[in-house]
Amino acid sequence: MISRSPFGDKYTYSVDRAHENHKIEDFVNERKTVVVQGLGFVGSAMVAALANARKAKEEILYNVIGLDLPDERNFWKIGRVNDGKSPVLSLDKNIDIAYRNALKNENVLATYSEYAYSKAEIVVIDINLDVHKKAVHSPYEYYFTLDCFKKAMRTIANNIPENTLCVVETTVPPGTTEKVVYPIFQKIFRKRHLDIAKLSLAHSYERVMPGMNYLNSITDFYRVYSGINDKSAKRAEEFFESFVNTKEYPLCKLDSPTASEIAKVLENSYRAMNIAFIQEWTEYAEKAEIDLFQVIHAIRMRPTHGNIMLPGFGVGGYCLSKDPLLADYSYRNFFNGKEHLEMSLSAVKTNDMMPTYTYYLLKQEVPFLRNKYITILGVSYLNDVADTRCSPTEIFYDSCIREGAVVTLHDPLVSFWQEKSLEVDTNIHHLKKKEHDIAIFAVRHGAYLNLTSDDIVSLLPGVKVIIDANNIINDDTAKLLSTKGIKMKGVGKGHWENF
Amino acid sequence: MISRSPFGDKYTYSVDRAHENHKIEDFVNERKTVVVQGLGFVGSAMVAALANARKAKEEILYNVIGLDLPDERNFWKIGRVNDGKSPVLSLDKNIDIAYRNALKNENVLATYSEYAYSKAEIVVIDINLDVHKKAVHSPYEYYFTLDCFKKAMRTIANNIPENTLCVVETTVPPGTTEKVVYPIFQKIFRKRHLDIAKLSLAHSYERVMPGMNYLNSITDFYRVYSGINDKSAKRAEEFFESFVNTKEYPLCKLDSPTASEIAKVLENSYRAMNIAFIQEWTEYAEKAEIDLFQVIHAIRMRPTHGNIMLPGFGVGGYCLSKDPLLADYSYRNFFNGKEHLEMSLSAVKTNDMMPTYTYYLLKQEVPFLRNKYITILGVSYLNDVADTRCSPTEIFYDSCIREGAVVTLHDPLVSFWQEKSLEVDTNIHHLKKKEHDIAIFAVRHGAYLNLTSDDIVSLLPGVKVIIDANNIINDDTAKLLSTKGIKMKGVGKGHWENF
Repeated sequence: MISRSPFGDKYTYSVDRAHENHKIEDFVNERKTVVVQGLGFVGSAMVAALANARKAKEEILYNVIGLDLPDERNFWKIGRVNDGKSPVLSLDKNIDIAYRNALKNENVLATYSEYAYSKAEIVVIDINLDVHKKAVHSPYEYYFTLDCFKKAMRTIANNIPENTLCVVETTVPPGTTEKVVYPIFQKIFRKRHLDIAKLSLAHSYERVMPGMNYLNSITDFYRVYSGINDKSAKRAEEFFESFVNTKEYPLCKLDSPTASEIAKVLENSYRAMNIAFIQEWTEYAEKAEIDLFQVIHAIRMRPTHGNIMLPGFGVGGYCLSKDPLLADYSYRNFFNGKEHLEMSLSAVKTNDMMPTYTYYLLKQEVPFLRNKYITILGVSYLNDVADTRCSPTEIFYDSCIREGAVVTLHDPLVSFWQEKSLEVDTNIHHLKKKEHDIAIFAVRHGAYLNLTSDDIVSLLPGVKVIIDANNIINDDTAKLLSTKGIKMKGVGKGHWENF
Repeated sequence: MISRSPFGDKYTYSVDRAHENHKIEDFVNERKTVVVQGLGFVGSAMVAALANARKAKEEILYNVIGLDLPDERNFWKIGRVNDGKSPVLSLDKNIDIAYRNALKNENVLATYSEYAYSKAEIVVIDINLDVHKKAVHSPYEYYFTLDCFKKAMRTIANNIPENTLCVVETTVPPGTTEKVVYPIFQKIFRKRHLDIAKLSLAHSYERVMPGMNYLNSITDFYRVYSGINDKSAKRAEEFFESFVNTKEYPLCKLDSPTASEIAKVLENSYRAMNIAFIQEWTEYAEKAEIDLFQVIHAIRMRPTHGNIMLPGFGVGGYCLSKDPLLADYSYRNFFNGKEHLEMSLSAVKTNDMMPTYTYYLLKQEVPFLRNKYITILGVSYLNDVADTRCSPTEIFYDSCIREGAVVTLHDPLVSFWQEKSLEVDTNIHHLKKKEHDIAIFAVRHGAYLNLTSDDIVSLLPGVKVIIDANNIINDDTAKLLSTKGIKMKGVGKGHWENF
C-alpha cells in the first residue's frame, strides 16, 4: 500500500509486525528508550528535541522511538523519520538538522509496532484529539469522544514495563489523566499482575509554535507539569530537565494533572477570547471610519494592554479553535457543570465567523460575485507558516465558490491545500497571466509586505477591488492604488473610506 | 447653604457671582490661565499637576482655575481647593503637597463662576458623564444623555476668548468632540461674531489611577491625543509637553478626536472583558477543586499571557462599569451600528454580577441567612483605595440585608460609605466585640494580608464560615483555620474543598 505525504513523496508499506519487532530489538541498547506516541505537529518536534538531548561530554542521552499508525494517512511519517527527514514542513532549519543527525547517530527509529512500548523507560503521549463541530459556527453543538484515545491508552498499559514514566502531552479535556487514563492503567496493571504504585503518570503541556522557532519552542520555553503523585512529578521533572533549558525557563509545577490540563485550555481560550474581542470593535471602527490599527498601537503603549489583539482575517490552526470546546466538555462531563463556558465558546464562534466579515466588506463593493475573478493571496492559517489546518481562507473560499466566482489561489509556502485537495500557485509572478476583478490579501506573509503599488498593479492586471484583510498594505500604498482607480477596503481600515 | 464633604468638613456658601468675578480679576495676571472644568477624580489631579508645572528656572507656568457647581453636592470641592486641600481622599501624599504649595504660591483658585472662562488660554473639560443602567445586570438597557454635557459646552463657548485651546478629557461616547462639541462651538462663535478657525479643539484622555501614584499617573504616563485640525493637535501637544514627562512617556497622536475617544473606551472595555473572562473559569475551577490562582500564575509565565486576570469579588470604580456602554451608545447613535457591542456589554454584565458568585458560595454553606451575623471586610472598590464608587460590596451587602442578615462592615480606609449612607468601622480591633457567624474577606487591603489564623480567630470570635473572595488568606492560614473547625471557602480556591 502507498502513503503519500504532503511533501509529495510516497512510501510503500505493508504491515509486518515481526519484522518491525526485530528492528526494535536491534535498535535498543543500554541507553534509555523514550517512545513518542504520535508523529504529528507536537510529536515530531518532541522526537527531534529528545534525539538532540545530551548528557555531559556530549554523550547521546536517549534512544527515541516515534510511533504512528500503519495507514495511508500516517505511514509516510514513519517513512520520513526513518529517512532522516522531519514529518512536518517548517521554516525552522534546526528541525531538519536534528532529524538528519539522529539518522546519522542511529538514535531515532519510527515504527507502528506497539512492541516498542515494552522497551520504554518513558512514554510521551502526543496523539491528536479532534473535536468536530456539528454545525458550522455553533460551538455549543460539537461531537467529541475519547474512544480512540482510551484505546491508545489501553495499548500502552498492555505493553509498558511496570516502572515506566508516562507523560500525557496531548491537549485533553481537563480531568482526563486522573479520571480516564489512570483508571485504565490501574485496571490493566491489575490484570497483568503489575504493581500500579511503580508506574509514574504525569501531565505536561507543550507550547509548540510553528515557524522559525519550532524546535526551540520545545526546548527553550516555559513548561507546566504535574504528576498523579510526588514520585510521578519528580520523575517528570527530571525528564524535562534533561532536554528543556530550565535554567532560563524554569519549570512550573502544579498540584494536580487536572490543574495542568486546565492551564493548557485556559491559556488558549484566553487567547481565543482576546482575538474575538476585537471583532466587534473592527466593525465599529469601520463605521466610524477610523484606523483601528493606529488606535490599538496607542493602547499597546500601556504595559497592561500590550497584548491587545489586532483586527484580522480569522483564526485557524489546531488549538484556539477547539481547546475552549475541550474545556466545555470537561466542565459538563467530568465536573457536573450545568452551564456552558459561554464566553469561551462565544469566542470560538466569533473567531470561526471572522472571515465572513471580510466577505461582507467585499459584498458591500461587489454585490454579485458570479463569474467574477477573485484572487486570494494566502491559504495557510498563519503568516510565514505552511500549515493550512482550519485556515480561515477555507470559509472565505467556500463562500466565493458558492456564489459562482472563479477563484485563483496563491500562497508562497503552500503548493497543495490538503483540506480542500487544491493546487496552490507559489509563484506570485504567475498571477500576471491570470484574470483579476477582486483581490483579497488574506495572510500576512512576509512575501506580501514589501509589494509596492506598482508591483500590485503589475501582478494583478485588471483588478478593480482590493481587500486587505490582515494589515498587509500600508496607507501610502493604499492611497496610491486608490488614485489608480482601484477601490481599497481593509479590515480595521475604516479611514480608507476617505481616500 | 451648607455643603458637606466626605471628609466631614462643612462649607457654607451663597451664590454671589459679582464677588467671585472680582476674585477672578484679582487672581489673573500675566501668566497663562488654565481653567479645569470639574473638580472630580480627574479634574482634581489635573489642577494639581498644572499648578505644579514649571518653566525653566523653576518659574511657575500656569495660573489654574478649578470650576465646579455651587450646590450642596459640589461646593465643598471649591471650598477645599481654596483652603489648599485636595478634593479627593488619596493615599498619595504628593497631591496634598501640590495643593498646599499652590495655595502658598497663589496660583490656584476654585470658583463656580463661568466668568473664569473669559480669562482662559486653555480649558480642560473634566466633567463626569454618568450612564444609568435601567435594570441591574442588564447592560443593554441603559439611560444616557448628553444634555448636561452640551449645556456645559455652551457655557464654555459663550465665554471663552476666540483663540482658546479646549481639551475634552471627559470619557465621552466616541464621536462627541467632532459631532457634538464642535458644532456647538461653531454655532455660538457665529452668534458671537468670533472666528471659529481661531479656536483649537482637542480630545485627550487621562489614565489616572487611584492609590499611591495618583498625581504621577497624570504626569508620568503615556497620553493619547488628537485635534480637530493640525493647529489644534499642535497646541494640545505643546500643552501636554508642558506638564507631562514626555521624554519617558512619549505622547501618542491619533488621526482624529473620534479615534482618541474610541481608544479610551476600547482600552477600558478590553480590561473589563479580561476580568469578566475569568469568571466562568472560576466556577469551573471550583467544581474541579483546583487552585485557579496557581494555574494562572503558571500561565502568566508566558509573556503574551502576562495580563490574564485573577478571580475576584467583582469590578467597581467609575470606568470599567460604564465605558463599554458609552462605546455602545456611540456605535448605535453616532455611527448607525445596528447591533450592540455584544461581547463588551456582556463583560459588563458578568462583572456587575460577579459578587453574586461569592454570595452563591456563601449560600452553599449557609442556606438561610436570617439573623445571621455577617461581617464584611472591605467596602471600597479596590484594594488600598478609599473610593467606594460602584463598589462590588454593595450588591453583596444588599443581598445579605434582603435576607435578614445582620451585617457588620469594616474597611481600614472608609469611615463613611457615601453611596449607602452607612458608617463603617476602620478599627479592626472593634470587631472583637461584635458577633460573627460568617466573615467575608472582600477587598484585598494590605491591612488584611498579614493576618495570621490566630489573629483571625481573635478578631472574629465565634465565626463558623469564612469566605475569601479576593485571594487574601493564604493556603497555610486557611488550613489552620480549617483545623480549628471553621469552614473555609474562597473564590478560585477549589482546592480548599479538600481541607
